[in-house]
Amino acid sequence: MTSYDTVSFLSDYGTVDEFVGVVHSVIHQLAPGTRVIDVGHQVPPHDVRAGGLALARAAQYLAPGVVLAVVDPGVGTARRAVAIEVGDGEAVFVGPDNGLLAPAVAMVGGATRAVELTEARYQLAAPGPTFAGRDVFGPAAAHLCAGVPLTDLGPEVDTAGLVPGIMPITRQEGELLYAEVLWTDRYGNLQLNVDPDEIEHHGDRIELRFDGRVRTGVRHGTYAEVPTGEVGLVVDSYGLVSIAIDRASAAAELGIGTGDEVVLVPIHDDGRPAGVTTTVTLREKP
Amino acid sequence: MTSYDTVSFLSDYGTVDEFVGVVHSVIHQLAPGTRVIDVGHQVPPHDVRAGGLALARAAQYLAPGVVLAVVDPGVGTARRAVAIEVGDGEAVFVGPDNGLLAPAVAMVGGATRAVELTEARYQLAAPGPTFAGRDVFGPAAAHLCAGVPLTDLGPEVDTAGLVPGIMPITRQEGELLYAEVLWTDRYGNLQLNVDPDEIEHHGDRIELRFDGRVRTGVRHGTYAEVPTGEVGLVVDSYGLVSIAIDRASAAAELGIGTGDEVVLVPIHDDGRPAGVTTTVTLREKP
Amino acid sequence: MTSYDTVSFLSDYGTVDEFVGVVHSVIHQLAPGTRVIDVGHQVPPHDVRAGGLALARAAQYLAPGVVLAVVDPGVGTARRAVAIEVGDGEAVFVGPDNGLLAPAVAMVGGATRAVELTEARYQLAAPGPTFAGRDVFGPAAAHLCAGVPLTDLGPEVDTAGLVPGIMPITRQEGELLYAEVLWTDRYGNLQLNVDPDEIEHHGDRIELRFDGRVRTGVRHGTYAEVPTGEVGLVVDSYGLVSIAIDRASAAAELGIGTGDEVVLVPIHDDGRPAGVTTTVTLREKP
Repeated sequence: MTSYDTVSFLSDYGTVDEFVGVVHSVIHQLAPGTRVIDVGHQVPPHDVRAGGLALARAAQYLAPGVVLAVVDPGVGTARRAVAIEVGDGEAVFVGPDNGLLAPAVAMVGGATRAVELTEARYQLAAPGPTFAGRDVFGPAAAHLCAGVPLTDLGPEVDTAGLVPGIMPITRQEGELLYAEVLWTDRYGNLQLNVDPDEIEHHGDRIELRFDGRVRTGVRHGTYAEVPTGEVGLVVDSYGLVSIAIDRASAAAELGIGTGDEVVLVPIHDDGRPAGVTTTVTLREKP
Repeated sequence: MTSYDTVSFLSDYGTVDEFVGVVHSVIHQLAPGTRVIDVGHQVPPHDVRAGGLALARAAQYLAPGVVLAVVDPGVGTARRAVAIEVGDGEAVFVGPDNGLLAPAVAMVGGATRAVELTEARYQLAAPGPTFAGRDVFGPAAAHLCAGVPLTDLGPEVDTAGLVPGIMPITRQEGELLYAEVLWTDRYGNLQLNVDPDEIEHHGDRIELRFDGRVRTGVRHGTYAEVPTGEVGLVVDSYGLVSIAIDRASAAAELGIGTGDEVVLVPIHDDGRPAGVTTTVTLREKP
Repeated sequence: MTSYDTVSFLSDYGTVDEFVGVVHSVIHQLAPGTRVIDVGHQVPPHDVRAGGLALARAAQYLAPGVVLAVVDPGVGTARRAVAIEVGDGEAVFVGPDNGLLAPAVAMVGGATRAVELTEARYQLAAPGPTFAGRDVFGPAAAHLCAGVPLTDLGPEVDTAGLVPGIMPITRQEGELLYAEVLWTDRYGNLQLNVDPDEIEHHGDRIELRFDGRVRTGVRHGTYAEVPTGEVGLVVDSYGLVSIAIDRASAAAELGIGTGDEVVLVPIHDDGRPAGVTTTVTLREKP
């Protein structure tokens, strides 16, 4: 029998209301010795993609155990509540089956089993149907920590039928690499969905096109090495290319943010961007 | 002798300054094994009513033990610092005697004993008189967890003399039910001080009057069932009627918030609101 | 051998991204029994001085053990990562050597030893060089809690060579005391870098000059004793003079904040401010 002693908890509950504290209290009462580690609760309300990306960024650093994630715009509808086992029991992800868990599950090796959370005896009776973190997901996480087997929580479901996550991928058209801002962090750094391998032949200076404008990005090893006034391209702590300005917010300075498109174009020795012959037609923002 | 191993902690200290961390540190040093669960610290500054309502919403889900709550505009004045026992020792509420604790205490069955926190040996000596969470309330909570009997913290006071909470109640005038927004949550849902029983004979469509405007609210089982563009009425996870718009903020869309008045009027079969014969005079907002 | 069971953690990571949770997770995995107490994570991004002052305010209340502090605009550059022992091992401060730790270290008695964090085996291998809290500082804090001796983390460095903190000091010119706002707290109280001793001969009413304006401050024992409409001067819970308005924000009402200059001038019996003979030339704000 596998049991767990840690719950890593991410949600869009915010920190103003008492939602997070109530879920902590419920877990503490159902599984007193459990350590609950808050991964973060300020995912924008109902933003499943942002929550999924945050969980994926954190995934490889989370303690083995239960991962509880709740961003759940469909609460109370037919969307399933699930627990997804990875690594043959090394960890279990608990949350709604709406794509939120999928990127992190994939990041740590994929699902080995999954159940739908239907067993009422492992849930709290609720005065209304709307606080699933308190009544369904939190209790499931706690019961797993208390030693309840995964398959007692509800019937097994086909892992192939779980809702997939939506991860935007880059698109290469000639020498133009169409990318997207995945994440704007607290410091205003703009993480792109670009692996350093995708621009390894681009040289140190790369043209950046976004929102009808053009800037030159210069590659550096760290944020602090970006000279004042320059737009830097830095491989961030997750191994992805990010746009950064030293001690200032690239997001604020460039006026772009999460979800916006950025096109990366190599700059040739003559200073002329590749692929530009006569005119440039920038794509409309979606 | 009763002792406790959990402190549930609510305040208006915010999360920007180090106030909350310092109180955690003080408790940890005075009662090392204690688990401190943050119920929330973003009660609006000095808003005793909002803090009291948040504590009451959370109360029935909190772990048995000590509940520490600090929203204390009168700190340093003659307002008393108190510890209020409920359930003959099942839990103790620690905080200022200003009505903050009263709604939650009532929710879990009422006070069985209370003391005023006057014993200096269970407090920290302070360079100034203003951080009662660190110097008075936090230490009292910790000492209770360390096994100090309630009555060692100071003299017993009459529970009937504790400052009551102020809970707005609805008012029925003919077919008009005058209600109030108790709470606007992170998602913009507007919780009313209305029990579903109060509108059980109103049918599925109810006229809502607020701020000089009129909208029709339609009852649904969950937030997600509210069709796009419709104003929903949903029994929330605390068992109260709330106004909701699916995946959007009812507060932002309707332009009302906590403390505002909403009048609920049944809609008759002919589509005519009840009680309306010739003209409607909407009440001024208080 | 000294080991520790508590990590007190302050940073500018904010609470929106998952940075703080990831550091918690890393510490939990490297030193499972450790208690991590969040002192606060909303230091303004890259504001070393604000972080240093917050840590100094909290310092004397923190549990003995490891103090982990990360406000690190120079991450990835030549700035050193250090661990600074105080009290011959009572506590160890871990963070960047950029002045952040210095005020708190001084507050608790000064450094007794220090090492530079260079040992790769006590760090995490990172895909990029930029998340030092996760890869360098957090692991160092955890390994100290797990019993690794300080000097195993890297070579000893001269404590006299550590980067000092910058604490603004007051300046007396005749009867004018030039002070500065150190901190604006959640309630809008303005903490000055003024010890009560510096104004002990000033009487109850003191002229305040700031931003080209003049107001009279009146001394009171507590915030709540300040009458409506009056600007109060209160010794705050850290033993410093602060400007306060009862149940309102002095910062908002007076239009000043952290870093601004305030000149305190005694008011003589005839109501005339000292040192004013003919004209007043207010200093420009820096």
